[in-house]
Amino acid sequence: MTKEELFQNIQNKESYLCVGLDTDIKRIPKHLLKYEDPIFEFNKQIIDATHDLCVAYKPNIAFYEALGAKGWESLQKTIEYIPKEIFTVADAKRGDIGNTSSLYARAFFENMNFDSITVAPYMGKDSVKPFLEFDNKWVILLGLTSNKGRDDFQKMDLVEGGKLYEKVLRKSQEWGGESQLMYVVGATQAAEFESIRTIIPNHFLLVPGVGAQGGDLELVSKYGMNSQCGLLVNSSRGIIYADDTVDFTKIARKKSKEIQLQMTEYLQKYL
Amino acid sequence: MTKEELFQNIQNKESYLCVGLDTDIKRIPKHLLKYEDPIFEFNKQIIDATHDLCVAYKPNIAFYEALGAKGWESLQKTIEYIPKEIFTVADAKRGDIGNTSSLYARAFFENMNFDSITVAPYMGKDSVKPFLEFDNKWVILLGLTSNKGRDDFQKMDLVEGGKLYEKVLRKSQEWGGESQLMYVVGATQAAEFESIRTIIPNHFLLVPGVGAQGGDLELVSKYGMNSQCGLLVNSSRGIIYADDTVDFTKIARKKSKEIQLQMTEYLQKYL
Repeated sequence: MTKEELFQNIQNKESYLCVGLDTDIKRIPKHLLKYEDPIFEFNKQIIDATHDLCVAYKPNIAFYEALGAKGWESLQKTIEYIPKEIFTVADAKRGDIGNTSSLYARAFFENMNFDSITVAPYMGKDSVKPFLEFDNKWVILLGLTSNKGRDDFQKMDLVEGGKLYEKVLRKSQEWGGESQLMYVVGATQAAEFESIRTIIPNHFLLVPGVGAQGGDLELVSKYGMNSQCGLLVNSSRGIIYADDTVDFTKIARKKSKEIQLQMTEYLQKYL
Repeated sequence: MTKEELFQNIQNKESYLCVGLDTDIKRIPKHLLKYEDPIFEFNKQIIDATHDLCVAYKPNIAFYEALGAKGWESLQKTIEYIPKEIFTVADAKRGDIGNTSSLYARAFFENMNFDSITVAPYMGKDSVKPFLEFDNKWVILLGLTSNKGRDDFQKMDLVEGGKLYEKVLRKSQEWGGESQLMYVVGATQAAEFESIRTIIPNHFLLVPGVGAQGGDLELVSKYGMNSQCGLLVNSSRGIIYADDTVDFTKIARKKSKEIQLQMTEYLQKYL
C-alpha cells in the first residue's frame, strides 16, 4: 500500500485506528472454543465487527508463535481474511544480520502478504535494509516505545547530541524514505512529539498504548498529526477484550466506534 | 541446563563449538529433497555427524519461519532430535513489551524446550525480564553484534561514559545473574574483548562469525576465555554448507573436527 492510499483510507473512514489482534486463547470468549480454529474465528468476528471503523490491523506475532505450527496457520488465515484495502502490520519486532532479515522479510511480505513489519533497530543498517527492498511494503522501526524499559537505553544521552531514539530516527533516514519507513512512537508527552516531528515531520507514526497501556488520544493527535494525518493509533486489549461473552463483537464495535468518533473530531481539529 | 553442566560438557568434549542450523531449502544437497521433510532430514544428518564434536546447536528461527507452519514443524522435530545434553539456542532475537515477551518465552522454552533464546535489548528491562523467569533457561542478550550495522547504534558514545553496548552489558546485570544471562559478542579486536571481560568477567559469551562472517578463533579464545571457558563459538555456513553433495555429512564432520581440535589446543593454552 502506498502512503497516498493509506491517507485516502484515513479520509474516507475518518479514522486512523489500528486494531491490535493480540489474540490469546485464554482470553477469548469461551463459546468460541468449540470451533476448529478458535483463534481465527475470534479474529474473523472482530474483523467483521470493526473493519469499517479502522484503517489497519496489527496481529502481534508472539500470540500466534506461542501456539506453534497451528498458530501460524491461524495467522495465515487471518491475514487472508482482512479486506485488501486495510493496512496490515506484522508486529514482530524482528531484526538480524542481512541474509537472515531477508528471510524474515520473505516470511511476512511474500508468504503472508503483510503490508508492513515492525523491526528493532539495535543491529543497524544491514539488519533493516533487506526489509526495504519490497515495493509498497513498509518497515515500522522501533523509535521510542511505550513501555517502562524504554528509559533503559532509548533515552540515553549521546555524546554527539540528542538521545538514542532520536539518533535512530535520524540515522534511518539514510536507509529509506517516508514512503517506506514508519516509526513506533509511544510518546506520552507533548515535548517528545514536538522533538520527534522536528526530525521526521512527514513520516507515519504507529502509536501504541492508547487503551490498556494508557496514553491520551487527544495529546497524540494534537502533537503528532501532520498534513497527511501521519498517525496510526493502536488499541488492542481495550477493543478486543472489552467483553468476553457472546456479545463481544457488539462491545468491540462500540469501543471502536467511540475511538473513531474522537478521531473524526481530531481530524477536523488538527489536520 | 546449568552453567556447571555446560562447562562440564565443554571439558568432556574439549570443545566450545556451537553449530548453527541455518537450514535453507535452497542450499541443502539436492538428494535430500526427496524426503518428506528435507529441512529436518538435513538437520538430523548434520546432528548425527557432529554431535560428539560440539556442545551447542543454534537454529536461526528465521530460516524456519520463512517456511510458515511447515518450517515450524521442522524446527520442533529438530529440537526434539538434538541429544538432551547438548545446549540449544533459539536464535530468534525477540523482545517486546512484558506480556508479549512472556508469550515468546513460552513458545521457545515450554513448547519447544530450548535451553536459551537470543533477545534484543532495545526495549529494556521489562522486555527481557519475562525470559528470565524460567529455571535453568537462559537469555542470550545482544551485546556487540558482528555485522557492519553494529557501528550505527551499538558503538555510540554515551554522555554518562562508555558505549551503548557496554551500557547494555552493565545495565542488564541488574536483571539477572551469570547463571541466566549470556551475551552475543561478535568482537573482532583484542581491545573489545578486554573491555567486555572487565564488565562481565564470568559470563558466557556466544560468539558468532567464526567462519563465513570472518573472525579469528585464536583471538576470541585468547581474549575471551575465562576460568569456566565462558565461550560458545558459533559456525553455521562454514560447517553445514561446506559441501552440497551426498558427502555433505562427512565434510561437515571434517570441518567441525578441525575447529574442535583447535579448541582443544586453546583450552589447554588459555583456560
